[in-house]
Amino acid sequence: MSDRYQKGIEKLKIMNPDSYKTLEENLEDIAPDMARYVAEFAYGDIYSRSELDMKIRELVTIASITTLGSAQPQLKSHIHGALNVGCTPEEIIEVIMQMAVYAGFPKALNGIFSAKEVFEERDEKIGNSE
Amino acid sequence: MSDRYQKGIEKLKIMNPDSYKTLEENLEDIAPDMARYVAEFAYGDIYSRSELDMKIRELVTIASITTLGSAQPQLKSHIHGALNVGCTPEEIIEVIMQMAVYAGFPKALNGIFSAKEVFEERDEKIGNSE
Amino acid sequence: MSDRYQKGIEKLKIMNPDSYKTLEENLEDIAPDMARYVAEFAYGDIYSRSELDMKIRELVTIASITTLGSAQPQLKSHIHGALNVGCTPEEIIEVIMQMAVYAGFPKALNGIFSAKEVFEERDEKIGNSE
Amino acid sequence: MSDRYQKGIEKLKIMNPDSYKTLEENLEDIAPDMARYVAEFAYGDIYSRSELDMKIRELVTIASITTLGSAQPQLKSHIHGALNVGCTPEEIIEVIMQMAVYAGFPKALNGIFSAKEVFEERDEKIGNSE
Amino acid sequence: MSDRYQKGIEKLKIMNPDSYKTLEENLEDIAPDMARYVAEFAYGDIYSRSELDMKIRELVTIASITTLGSAQPQLKSHIHGALNVGCTPEEIIEVIMQMAVYAGFPKALNGIFSAKEVFEERDEKIGNSE
Amino acid sequence: MSDRYQKGIEKLKIMNPDSYKTLEENLEDIAPDMARYVAEFAYGDIYSRSELDMKIRELVTIASITTLGSAQPQLKSHIHGALNVGCTPEEIIEVIMQMAVYAGFPKALNGIFSAKEVFEERDEKIGNSE
Repeated sequence: MSDRYQKGIEKLKIMNPDSYKTLEENLEDIAPDMARYVAEFAYGDIYSRSELDMKIRELVTIASITTLGSAQPQLKSHIHGALNVGCTPEEIIEVIMQMAVYAGFPKALNGIFSAKEVFEERDEKIGNSE
Repeated sequence: MSDRYQKGIEKLKIMNPDSYKTLEENLEDIAPDMARYVAEFAYGDIYSRSELDMKIRELVTIASITTLGSAQPQLKSHIHGALNVGCTPEEIIEVIMQMAVYAGFPKALNGIFSAKEVFEERDEKIGNSE
Repeated sequence: MSDRYQKGIEKLKIMNPDSYKTLEENLEDIAPDMARYVAEFAYGDIYSRSELDMKIRELVTIASITTLGSAQPQLKSHIHGALNVGCTPEEIIEVIMQMAVYAGFPKALNGIFSAKEVFEERDEKIGNSE
Repeated sequence: MSDRYQKGIEKLKIMNPDSYKTLEENLEDIAPDMARYVAEFAYGDIYSRSELDMKIRELVTIASITTLGSAQPQLKSHIHGALNVGCTPEEIIEVIMQMAVYAGFPKALNGIFSAKEVFEERDEKIGNSE
Repeated sequence: MSDRYQKGIEKLKIMNPDSYKTLEENLEDIAPDMARYVAEFAYGDIYSRSELDMKIRELVTIASITTLGSAQPQLKSHIHGALNVGCTPEEIIEVIMQMAVYAGFPKALNGIFSAKEVFEERDEKIGNSE
Repeated sequence: MSDRYQKGIEKLKIMNPDSYKTLEENLEDIAPDMARYVAEFAYGDIYSRSELDMKIRELVTIASITTLGSAQPQLKSHIHGALNVGCTPEEIIEVIMQMAVYAGFPKALNGIFSAKEVFEERDEKIGNSE
């Protein structure tokens, strides 16, 4: 495997190890190169760059996928990733709420409901609900 | 609560009381301010303006969410809203069908299927199917 | 030419005669059938249906194209169409403003600026600016 | 029924007979004209044109619906259609993978998962997984 | 004017005073309430919340508008805003580049070209080009 | 430079040499790595795969970018690319017209107008206009 793959896998170990393992398994019979490109390009090339820290990378990704509005599995995966690299639930919710201004309320609301599912899976509490 | 909130809640009582109650409950542990913004901004500021009647407001919203293509819960909620303010099932279907021209057939078809679910929940008949 | 074409052309005479003529000219060397489909399907099949009046048809189209966000020539053409069938500038602006809730502020703002260009071309005044 | 309808139905018999039958049944109580427009316009007008063969028509449709990202039932229907007109599973996967470049990884991944469901329903094998 | 308006204007003074002034002028004859909603809701309600700092707010907004792909004036306005609150050109470019993974290369490239225009207007240098 | 870069550049020489040169120049002061990723990932990884020929790759890309609706420079670049690898103007127009069904008429029309600009630049004739 390429260096880029190894670098990507290192990043994924920190950010989202379970998601990537599931992705690899889901793709192995049908498009194994696609899993490799995720590791190599998305994580090995892009996320491995030093210009932004992992927390900001995950928050801008959450903003982007909330704006797409139709990729809830990937949104949930990156909400896990954001929590794994140290973002708080409050920060994540705040980013998604802000998307109401740019992508409209329906997408922001559906993003919040995806976050709620992730927090419940992980038993995360958010500050203003204790 | 603000005047805008009260005005929004008045509108919501006419348009979509059950949807808003569900929304508030779903958001109360995670993003209660988001429910408040829906009442204050969407309904208190925008829907409370006098320039358009409620029927047209709901029909243009249905057009917009059908065009988004990925917010079926909100689409269904506004189809309920449209019926609640006096739109006929035929008018609603007609708006969604017209979206085939502007947003493509797949989104129009998925919009029609959402409408079908709402009409079945409410046991609405549409004219040309009796 | 088909009956549907004739019916479409009748509608277009009321709604947007100049836009269609320009469209036909722009397409005649490259995709003349596409102009025919616009007349036959969009106007002959869809807009000719009796379930909605022309004013509502134009307002929901404006909602949809504002939501697309990237088809400003067509948005302007339908703002002309809406004015031609009797919508007021205030109603048009109101529909576009409401899109801030569903499609986000950037698309709503760009929609308003397209409307502004159309109103200026036609020297339309809007009520609250006199 | 119109000639265009007959031509569309002929095309649909080759491409996707079961999907269209289901569509017609799902729409018959609510928007039967919409099923007719699918046959007449999409298949009778567009797919019946001679400029492209059916395989390319299905592949570009798969590219488009993957890019929309939010119309998985229609995507699956056209993956069936592509296989029915002779595209290989490898070609279909390849088109969807290429969409990662133009529509982003989340939409490409969700497209691949839709293809996987279709292949499993039909018990299709893809070359590099045997 | 409301407290929310005042709070929004305070934020806008820090983030993007010129853009808002231009917006207000552009809207005053056609939709002055829309400018007020931008100040009140986007800036007074959302950006004034304490959960995220201004730099992160601008970066997630840039991610969202790059993902929309069709609102270049607003993208440029928020690139100005990001620089005004202390983001570096490198951070902004990095966020936009990451969008290639989520929204595809065309939107990321067009985002970078918008950033380039803003940097040239302001005569900003980016580190790896000196 | 990596093997993938060399492979990508080989592909680009066939498909779109001028576009890539312009891209590289436009990015060199601001995001030179982005140009490299285009060569390495888009062309070296994806377009270099053997499962689809270049003509189909360009046609599905044209379908995708027409569906995005907001990336006209990239659409024009790939219309050039399609012509460069042997697609006819008729095939290109036909793919874009088919997008009316999936992405709506406004995006299909704007795609046709982009094709028209490219054909005029290259002085291409299309069959049915001679």
